[in-house]
Amino acid sequence: MRVQKPKGTVDILPEQSGSWQKVEETARNFFNRANYREIRTPSFENYEIFSRSSGDSSEIVEKQMYDFSDKGGRHIALRPEGTAGVVRAYVEDKMYAPEVVKPFNVFYMESTFRYERPQAGRQREFHQIGVESFGSSNPLSDVQTIMMGHDLLAELGVKNYQLHINTLGNEQVRKDYHDALVNYFTPVKDELSEDSQRRLRDNPLRILDSKDDRDKKFLPNAPKIRDFLDDDSKQNFESILKMLDQLGIDYVIDDDLVRGLDYYTGVIFEFMVEDKSLWESATTILGGGRYDHLVEEFDGPATPAVGFGIGEERLMLVLEKQNPALFENRGIDFFITNVGEGTAQKAIEITRSLRKQGFEADFDVNQKKLKAQFKKADRDHAKYVITLGEKELENGVLNIKRLADGKTIDLSLEDINDMSKVMKDLED
Amino acid sequence: MRVQKPKGTVDILPEQSGSWQKVEETARNFFNRANYREIRTPSFENYEIFSRSSGDSSEIVEKQMYDFSDKGGRHIALRPEGTAGVVRAYVEDKMYAPEVVKPFNVFYMESTFRYERPQAGRQREFHQIGVESFGSSNPLSDVQTIMMGHDLLAELGVKNYQLHINTLGNEQVRKDYHDALVNYFTPVKDELSEDSQRRLRDNPLRILDSKDDRDKKFLPNAPKIRDFLDDDSKQNFESILKMLDQLGIDYVIDDDLVRGLDYYTGVIFEFMVEDKSLWESATTILGGGRYDHLVEEFDGPATPAVGFGIGEERLMLVLEKQNPALFENRGIDFFITNVGEGTAQKAIEITRSLRKQGFEADFDVNQKKLKAQFKKADRDHAKYVITLGEKELENGVLNIKRLADGKTIDLSLEDINDMSKVMKDLED
Repeated sequence: MRVQKPKGTVDILPEQSGSWQKVEETARNFFNRANYREIRTPSFENYEIFSRSSGDSSEIVEKQMYDFSDKGGRHIALRPEGTAGVVRAYVEDKMYAPEVVKPFNVFYMESTFRYERPQAGRQREFHQIGVESFGSSNPLSDVQTIMMGHDLLAELGVKNYQLHINTLGNEQVRKDYHDALVNYFTPVKDELSEDSQRRLRDNPLRILDSKDDRDKKFLPNAPKIRDFLDDDSKQNFESILKMLDQLGIDYVIDDDLVRGLDYYTGVIFEFMVEDKSLWESATTILGGGRYDHLVEEFDGPATPAVGFGIGEERLMLVLEKQNPALFENRGIDFFITNVGEGTAQKAIEITRSLRKQGFEADFDVNQKKLKAQFKKADRDHAKYVITLGEKELENGVLNIKRLADGKTIDLSLEDINDMSKVMKDLED
Repeated sequence: MRVQKPKGTVDILPEQSGSWQKVEETARNFFNRANYREIRTPSFENYEIFSRSSGDSSEIVEKQMYDFSDKGGRHIALRPEGTAGVVRAYVEDKMYAPEVVKPFNVFYMESTFRYERPQAGRQREFHQIGVESFGSSNPLSDVQTIMMGHDLLAELGVKNYQLHINTLGNEQVRKDYHDALVNYFTPVKDELSEDSQRRLRDNPLRILDSKDDRDKKFLPNAPKIRDFLDDDSKQNFESILKMLDQLGIDYVIDDDLVRGLDYYTGVIFEFMVEDKSLWESATTILGGGRYDHLVEEFDGPATPAVGFGIGEERLMLVLEKQNPALFENRGIDFFITNVGEGTAQKAIEITRSLRKQGFEADFDVNQKKLKAQFKKADRDHAKYVITLGEKELENGVLNIKRLADGKTIDLSLEDINDMSKVMKDLED
């Protein structure tokens, strides 16, 4: 047997997990303050959920899905992204009903799965944090979504990030623009990459996302969507930009921004980080936009919607550079060392009492020699060591030592039950 | 397209997710205080990881695995339980190395997957919270594990739970007992259920778990493992029980307790809840035990280990009855209502400021009429409503109302930036 994790997956080990916990706790707290509540959808859905939402011909569906038949012959797939499952739940669980407060604002934190070539910050099982808001077409709702992305990144300690923003206009605009792109690229079709030749047929917008040099040389002169916007779409975009101005949120209008998924309509945006030590060029860590047709696509009532998603792996890469405090290994409060007859039982009792009082406490279940116990206390970054021997047990008087400066005081066995008082005594 | 979740899966909607968050936060906090750190392994593993750990002939592997071939032809499976992946990580990531503190104590909270017939509290995607401790064979480590299970359930607010405990002894004991069971059941083989006839061949211990009446009538007179225990195993079990006595943790020695998985050795235990409104008979919500051979089974060095797992769905069913406070829908702190020219921008700014100060705040992105905004504030269980009109915007004087008793005070736009002071004024 190969005792190995599957290719493209990772273990998040104890030395890293603390920083993941802190990031997720910050995000959960942030979303709750914004009156967004968590939603959890299944890790897999019926295949059609993703093929319909991402587009049959999309790269995700064609090449990257973890799809299979379950033991009942159902064609299911591990979720490749977060939005489709939430939209499915919104429709199936009738969250559009009038008794549910609108907009229906939710967040999620979950594993997502794509069969891709693994590289730094890109894995086959990865993690997404996202928000979705259903039931408002008001530009205030786009602005609130963008503002939340901005403020969450700030709260997490991300630096040097820039908001790129664009609009895809309404359906007619996208149709006109689609035709213009087809007209522009068709004459040079044979010079494009194979992928873009396929995109030209299936979704020419995606050519604008290409990183292939054969395609990139045609991009600067390609038609821009802003030249196709109707008055309503322009006005909508301008009112969003104006509110962002007033909130002091900087942005760059980015004509080449189109987003990878089929379902976007209206405003789209990405927060990008530029950090040469991580990536050659500016890289997206948060992206989103408006998708006003997806609920209908899933047989629900017409429902405007807007959201964003964060790739947690990339976010962690950035934070490791930009907010190292998140990655510091915090120690425990107390380590109880013990030696001699009857002291092990007392050690576990003291440990239990301290934990119940809210402290982090441990002792040595292996009952190694005192020296090894002190070493363990040190490796656990304990702040205080309590020493317990037969004499101490007999007298009921223990010794506590603060490792930072070596200060020690005595305390009775009863004092253990009110450790915050002992802590105060130690301060004095 | 069927817009439906796959059979046997559920959505955890915003009205339920808050209680899941509280339970998981309590558990995370509890484990951190016990110096256990989180580990996250992939949602799927190579198939052999589970077939080897659970036993080829086990029900899990034979009938319940979500296994499939990925796009590279690898035979992988969604994890059916939490321990195997952690053991695989322990070996593959060399956590047995001397520079890693022992015991290596970890916890996990994750989705697990079994293709079973769905029923209340049993789903095809379900959630497990568990701990594993590698590197101690000292009974203190069994005791600490059991104590943690006990104290965690107490901290979560579970009531009327009882610890059932048994020991499987060492390898020779299990072999002798295995033979005794075969001798006992073989003469009545034809009267057993089909499942137990199969178990008799593959793992006769599992017959003791049977709920089938055809099997149950033979159980009271079946051989008991305690009659096969050698002196070391007896002494080990007795020292565990003695320490539990001293910690005031009640238990029942349960001869029929065998646990469903192949890998257990030594002490095994389950915490069971009796609640007629939920289940006919006492039901396990936390189970675990010692498994001293699994690391070797995965080609790692000989490593004693002990752990437990909690089924989160069942736990939530119990808590919904026994700790309803966890399920109360908490409201937000502030709702900002606004009406009139220019007030929407100020409403989003105030909302943003309050959120930054740590409060839960919202406003109406849909900009409905004032009456509808007040209704929304009410349905969001807002504690305070701030009213903002053109006049207020002009004068810079706002009004805040406490919904519980209708008390109102005035505040200036600048006061918004120090809302904790305003709160104090409201108290006076």
